Amino acid sequence: MNTFTLILEILGTFAFAVSGIRLASQKRFDLFGAYVVGVATAIGGGTIRDLLLNIPVFWMSNSIYLVLSGVALAYGCIPSRFTMKQTKAILVFDTLGLALFNIVGLEKTVSLGFPWWTAIVMGTITGAAGGVIRDVLVGQVPLIFQKEIYAMACVVGGVVYFICLHFGLNAIFSGLIGGTAVILMRYLAITYRLALPHLPK
Amino acid sequence: MNTFTLILEILGTFAFAVSGIRLASQKRFDLFGAYVVGVATAIGGGTIRDLLLNIPVFWMSNSIYLVLSGVALAYGCIPSRFTMKQTKAILVFDTLGLALFNIVGLEKTVSLGFPWWTAIVMGTITGAAGGVIRDVLVGQVPLIFQKEIYAMACVVGGVVYFICLHFGLNAIFSGLIGGTAVILMRYLAITYRLALPHLPK
Amino acid sequence: MNTFTLILEILGTFAFAVSGIRLASQKRFDLFGAYVVGVATAIGGGTIRDLLLNIPVFWMSNSIYLVLSGVALAYGCIPSRFTMKQTKAILVFDTLGLALFNIVGLEKTVSLGFPWWTAIVMGTITGAAGGVIRDVLVGQVPLIFQKEIYAMACVVGGVVYFICLHFGLNAIFSGLIGGTAVILMRYLAITYRLALPHLPK
Repeated sequence: MNTFTLILEILGTFAFAVSGIRLASQKRFDLFGAYVVGVATAIGGGTIRDLLLNIPVFWMSNSIYLVLSGVALAYGCIPSRFTMKQTKAILVFDTLGLALFNIVGLEKTVSLGFPWWTAIVMGTITGAAGGVIRDVLVGQVPLIFQKEIYAMACVVGGVVYFICLHFGLNAIFSGLIGGTAVILMRYLAITYRLALPHLPK
Repeated sequence: MNTFTLILEILGTFAFAVSGIRLASQKRFDLFGAYVVGVATAIGGGTIRDLLLNIPVFWMSNSIYLVLSGVALAYGCIPSRFTMKQTKAILVFDTLGLALFNIVGLEKTVSLGFPWWTAIVMGTITGAAGGVIRDVLVGQVPLIFQKEIYAMACVVGGVVYFICLHFGLNAIFSGLIGGTAVILMRYLAITYRLALPHLPK
Repeated sequence: MNTFTLILEILGTFAFAVSGIRLASQKRFDLFGAYVVGVATAIGGGTIRDLLLNIPVFWMSNSIYLVLSGVALAYGCIPSRFTMKQTKAILVFDTLGLALFNIVGLEKTVSLGFPWWTAIVMGTITGAAGGVIRDVLVGQVPLIFQKEIYAMACVVGGVVYFICLHFGLNAIFSGLIGGTAVILMRYLAITYRLALPHLPK
């Protein structure tokens, strides 16, 4: 179980760090600035979660998260014509990170005995808050509130996760299905330009 | 005493959530984005306070705050011609939330044995930090630092609160008088366009 | 040892508060707004550090930090023709604050038994996060990520600090040398317009 969570965290960290580093380099941040934005994107959501849950902050006793952000920086230094197209890469990594971190947040919160709705909020914070911090740091309005379904996908993923648990699936399968729900919602939202309605002005 | 604090928190939560939701909808945020901004405005100040005081974060064990933000979202969906004028509504709810949260922050901090000046800072953070988070999230410079007396009203409310306590009034009356002082200062500041001076450039 | 740390914290607090107050007054913040930005700049980094380390937040039990920010506000009210030139003053105070806070963050984290790399991160956060908060509050993109070597100087200062410790110097001398390294790096970076490279776009 812990190994499973760790693997999710590692993959999500790399994905989010790349997303932050690519956006920062588009905004002409220097190498170290890009690294800081990458780190903040990758560990920001989990840090807020751990502070709220009042547990030791996950990245402070294990250097792998900062090392992984360094690997993501090296990856970001490869000119994009040798990797994926810039915009597409940010999108793919961002979606993976969102799904992975959402599940990690759900499982950590459940294991501490909090109610299901707190877990869904923590999963959403773990998944989406890093992206909000990233946007504030590079000076753009957090787009997650205006564009395609994003944080909402975490909420849906959380609900799916608890439905799976309720019907007797174990945490790993519930996590896999919940994470898939997040990715699916993001894919549908981007492909069919689905968006939530706005409030009347 | 605890019931009194809870009632203040509930009213303040609704007031601040409405203020956040209305501003977010003016900025063309979608429904979920408006909800998140509403929640962040409503619980942001209290969350920072609880983290600083190192006590369990108030909204994580009681779903009423998130539910109330949902009610505020429903209220925000009513076209404004059926409720109050947009700008006036934001102003009224914002002032109520400021006064209510200020008192809650004062009382919580005092009950933990911190000195009076820490309580005044915590009251101001509880009252004003949610609005700062709201402004950062929607991408505008926090206006509370430039316009009419705002956070300063919390400081004055806190001082009035401690003067009342000092002269033997109980916490509830001191809170009512302190909160009234906040509302009065805001009313005078807006009506007579009172503002604090600027520093020499 | 504790006295040494306290003196560093006091000097750094004043330096950072002045830097925040001067920037806020340039942006036409009112007196109280300038004070809040000054306080946030001065105590922001250390507050995040203490929350992450899960220790009592340093400024909540000792009023000297808020008083010092008040002194900085009074200093900021002196027209700049009687003090230093505005831009130069911000630069000098900012560099001093950076070096001083970096060392305080390093020493606090080491004394809690965290590994050296966590201490370097905490030192950098203590030194640089206040400036990031200041920039977000006044509504500008945190320049530390784009301009001359800034947060990177904290990392170098931290490495120098641990090299000194490794070669048997005591904490005070290691701190003095590490802090000097921070100031030197900033001086060289500004004088010779040194900057870190950018990522390929």
